[in-house]
Order: sequence, then C-alpha cells, then structure tokens
Amino acid sequence: MSAEVVSLPRKEPQSLPTLAPILALTATSMNAVNAVILERMQSEIPLIPALAGHLISGGGKRMRPMLTLAGAELVGYHGTRHHKLAAAVEFIHTATLLHDDVVDGSDLRRGKAAANIVFGNPATVLVGDFLFSRAFELMVEDGSLKVLKILSNASAVIAEGEVDQLTAQRQIETSEERYLAIIGAKTAALFAAASRISAVVAERGDAEERALDDYGRNLGIAFQLVDDALDYSGRQALLGKAVGDDFREAKMTLPIILAHARARPEDKPFWTRVIETGNQTESDLDRAITLVEQTGSIQETMRRARAYADAAKAALAVMPDSDIKRALGDIADFCVERAY
Amino acid sequence: MSAEVVSLPRKEPQSLPTLAPILALTATSMNAVNAVILERMQSEIPLIPALAGHLISGGGKRMRPMLTLAGAELVGYHGTRHHKLAAAVEFIHTATLLHDDVVDGSDLRRGKAAANIVFGNPATVLVGDFLFSRAFELMVEDGSLKVLKILSNASAVIAEGEVDQLTAQRQIETSEERYLAIIGAKTAALFAAASRISAVVAERGDAEERALDDYGRNLGIAFQLVDDALDYSGRQALLGKAVGDDFREAKMTLPIILAHARARPEDKPFWTRVIETGNQTESDLDRAITLVEQTGSIQETMRRARAYADAAKAALAVMPDSDIKRALGDIADFCVERAY
Repeated sequence: MSAEVVSLPRKEPQSLPTLAPILALTATSMNAVNAVILERMQSEIPLIPALAGHLISGGGKRMRPMLTLAGAELVGYHGTRHHKLAAAVEFIHTATLLHDDVVDGSDLRRGKAAANIVFGNPATVLVGDFLFSRAFELMVEDGSLKVLKILSNASAVIAEGEVDQLTAQRQIETSEERYLAIIGAKTAALFAAASRISAVVAERGDAEERALDDYGRNLGIAFQLVDDALDYSGRQALLGKAVGDDFREAKMTLPIILAHARARPEDKPFWTRVIETGNQTESDLDRAITLVEQTGSIQETMRRARAYADAAKAALAVMPDSDIKRALGDIADFCVERAY
Repeated sequence: MSAEVVSLPRKEPQSLPTLAPILALTATSMNAVNAVILERMQSEIPLIPALAGHLISGGGKRMRPMLTLAGAELVGYHGTRHHKLAAAVEFIHTATLLHDDVVDGSDLRRGKAAANIVFGNPATVLVGDFLFSRAFELMVEDGSLKVLKILSNASAVIAEGEVDQLTAQRQIETSEERYLAIIGAKTAALFAAASRISAVVAERGDAEERALDDYGRNLGIAFQLVDDALDYSGRQALLGKAVGDDFREAKMTLPIILAHARARPEDKPFWTRVIETGNQTESDLDRAITLVEQTGSIQETMRRARAYADAAKAALAVMPDSDIKRALGDIADFCVERAY
C-alpha cells in the first residue's frame, strides 16, 4: 500500500466486458460455420446469394451461432456437427431479420441500407423463405430429430411473438407481462434453442440442456431489453441503427410502457396521441426521449436487463469453471454494458 | 344395333372429367386432414387463426394434400401418418400463397379479398412464417427424416423458383426453358413431394416413390400451364380470380413467351412496351389477349398441358389398375379440361 494510491473509477475502460474472449475461443469453429453459411446460401438464382450476402456479410455479431459453438465448447463436445447447426440457426435468424425489415419498413440494418430498400419487398420476403428452408435442410442433413424439434418449435414461437408484437402496436395499455411474453418469443426463444442444441449434439443430460436453455433465454431477454432501451438513446446511432424506429412504429416496448405508467397526468394525452393514433410531429421523438428519461424508464429497463443477464450467468452455475464459462458470462455483461 | 343410333358428340357433359371420384375416395381421410389443419393453425395469438382461416377456410381445392392421400391409397397404406403430413403439405402451400399475395400485391384469392388486403402485408408475411414453421413441427412429430428431407428440399426449391420468377419479370426474352424451370420449381416441386411422401410412409420401394414423384411433377406442370393460360381467358373470372393479373405484373408465362416469339414484326414493339417498360394503358390487356389468341398461343399452351397431364397418367402405368388409379388419372384430365 502506498500513499499515492488514488481511488479508481468504478471501471477502467479496459475492464469493460468485451466479446474478445468468446470470439477468440470460438474463432476456429466460427470460421467453419462461416464456410457453411457461405456455401449454403448459394443458389443458381443469382439474386439469392446477392440479397442474402448483403445482410449476412454485413457484419452481424453472429451472436446466436456463437452460443451454439460456445455451448458445445462448454460441454466438452469434440465433433463438428454443431457447425451445420450453428449455420442453420444463423439462417433462421437472417430469415426473420429479412421479414422483419419488410414488416417494419426498415431503412437501415447494421449501419447500411436494409435489404428491402436495396432489393425491394418481394425479393426480401422470398429470399427469407429460401434461407428458412435451407436452415431445415441443414438440420435434416444433421439428422437429429431432437434438434429439429427444438428449432422448428422455436421458429413457430418466433413467428407467434412477431404477430403478437404487431397486434400490440399502438396499444398504449399493453402490459409489462405481455411485453415480456413477446420478447421471450420473438428474441429469447432462438437464443435458448441455439444454446440448448449444443448439449443435444454432445448428448449431455437434461440438466445441462436445461442450464444452457436457461442461459440463452435469460440472455435473449436481457439483449432485447437493452435493444429496446437503445432505441431511445443517443448510443443507438453509434451502433448503426436509426434512433426512434420503435417510437415511429408505435411499438410497445418497456421504456414506453414504463414512461406511460409513470407519466404525470398532463403527459398522458401525449402518449395516447403519439402511440394510439400514431399522429406524430417532428418534435415528438425528442419529447418522448425526455419523458422516458425523466421517468427513469431507461434506467429501469437497464436494471431489468442487468437482472436477466445475472440470471443467465447464474444458470451456468452447475457447470465447472472454465475460460469458456467466464467468456459466456462476459457475453451477458457485454449485452448490458454495451449500452453505456 | 338400331337405325336410331345417332353419333354422339365427342364428349357428353357428364363424361367431362371431374374431381368427384377422387373426392369420394379420399373423403374420410381428408376429414382427418382437415381436423389436423384446424387444430394446428390455432395459436394463443388470435390474429394467427383469423388470418390463416381466412385463406384455409376459403374453399381451396386441397389439391396437394389430396395427392398425399390418394397416393397412400394407391400404394395400399393403411396407417394414419399421412394425415399429419398432408396437413404439413397444405401448410407449406398456404404459407407460399400468403407470401405470393404480398409479393404480387394481389387483390383477390379464391374469389374473395386476399389476406394482404384484409390483414395487411406485415401480418400476412408473419402468419405465413408461422404456418411454415408449423408444417415442420408436424413433420418432426411424424419423425421420418426421409419425408423431412423431401419437403425441406421442396420448400427451398419453391423459394428459388419464386425468386427466379421475380427476376424474369419484365424480361420479354425469357426462354421457354427458363419458364419451365420456374414452374417446375415454384409449383411442380410441391406436387411431386406431396405425391412421393405417400410411398415413403408406406415404405414402398424406389420404383413406386419415383412413379408417384413423376406423376405429381408432371401434374404440377400441367396445372401451372393451364393456370397461366387461364390468366388470358374469360374462364378465369368464373374461377374466382382476376383476369390479366400476370399481364399487369409483366410476369413471363408461356402464353406471352409464345405470343412474342410468334408476333408479326409490327406487334413486337407492343410486347416490348407493355412487358419491358411495364408502361400499360387500359386497353392493352384486350390487345394482349387478342394477340395471344391470334398467334394460337393459348391453344399451344393447352396442348403442352395436355402432354404433361398424359405423362402424369403414364407415370402410374407401373401400378395395378384400381379405382384410385383411375381417379388420379381423372385429376390430370380435370386439370387440363377445367379450362374449357
């Protein structure tokens, strides 16, 4: 100890969680997955790889296939079956992104023009269908009915979540419970499935499957909560997305649900107008952001995300400590802290 | 023999092929399939059964599941596995119809407002995704990897065909060969698969699988050729569809390919204008119909449909004669002759 010691800020920049450890630990297998993705998005119809490649090569984080790879590493799987399955997971995710962009009329995705803007809605819908079918072909080649069951169920649940989200649009009275059901379905179901199937291919028991499923599901909810918080934050622009997309679509996410619940009586009519009637003027987004901040709704959304991220880490408590386990914990921390 | 005998017209009205025999032979199992369809299109999200039911209860012919049921009858299968699989086939078909209606911006489907008009594009895309996922869940429950392989491959091929059709739009120089590849993929692949899987569940050999695949594939091409001819025929309106949809979308179907190839030099610029530039006036459809008729392009399209229908019937030559075999032959005849 020395008298010159000064109190450190709570976190030094270099101690912020990053994806670097998990990226390093899964780099070799991710290369194999990328090779499968590249090979299997090909088609004799040139528009298919052109459109799929626009999104797939567009620098996504490959978060979901990474969960399959990391899970396999965690349970000590030494085969290669998970490469095809991780590619199938990414194809399912890509298909849903393409369809989402059509559904939302998105302009930007991953910092560049969305596929629907470049190639039009018709091709975007159909190439989504192609990738979805290709995902099932990859799973069938693998041959595990258990994996097929997990991922076909996840796909149906995702679609249900997306439809439910559509139905909740413009409904200012949407409950927190319904919101959690929606993000549990549209986002967390695939995180859970991607993570779980690693234990299936490794033929581990129910306990490890459940642990990985819980990890993925909690992580997925944390991830979506943060995403929904970011839509009302200046940080969003740095992540290559348009700020305020959810607001303009009158999508009922937690920041809005909380801000409306906590609103002063004189602010309630604002929310009714911009959400229920969808009648928005140019300055409304700024006012919405102010109200969301004033009511502490972003902080509360982030607090919940933190709790789900911690639950994700806790789900892995049954597994022995290892580098990969710590790296999986870092993913959870990263999901929450990338927001700051 | 009697002097009063008069020569009969080639076909009496009652001798025209109908779907009555096949409907009677598959009625019991079709009820079982309809029960599966009704049960499995349900969801806790009310918009899903509402939208799916709008199309599914809208009086489709159930042609594709009928092929699965009839094929099972033909090969002497006595189980019930094909009920779920036939429902899966219908779900795949329904999903593609929903997405097609979004892609084409259709107004009418089966004589009433298309789902995209009633429920909007976003919900129509997403409910299509749901039904597609549900189809795979049904197949996974059945548990045959061979069936899963056949239908996941067919699904990918359908999507490729749809994208190829989109790419060929407005391309007046589209070849007959490419057109046949497109309809072979977008339509005949599912007819072939629906028919083939009946031999798979019955565990018949390759020869019967191939015969049923050939039957379905040729039938599917005949069916689509007739559909494409009908789009330039007054009969179309009687079948609950809008006349001229293909023309307005500048879709390159055989009647147009032939009419352009056979056009007098002075008519060529007409085709270039209406198809390549998509610049159409109100009277252009009438002129297109006249030119298609004058060049004998409808007759030629129907002549080819007849040849594919005959090939479908010939594919079943290896099977012993039976009521169901004759009824399958009637489907082929019906597909062609419904047009007159």
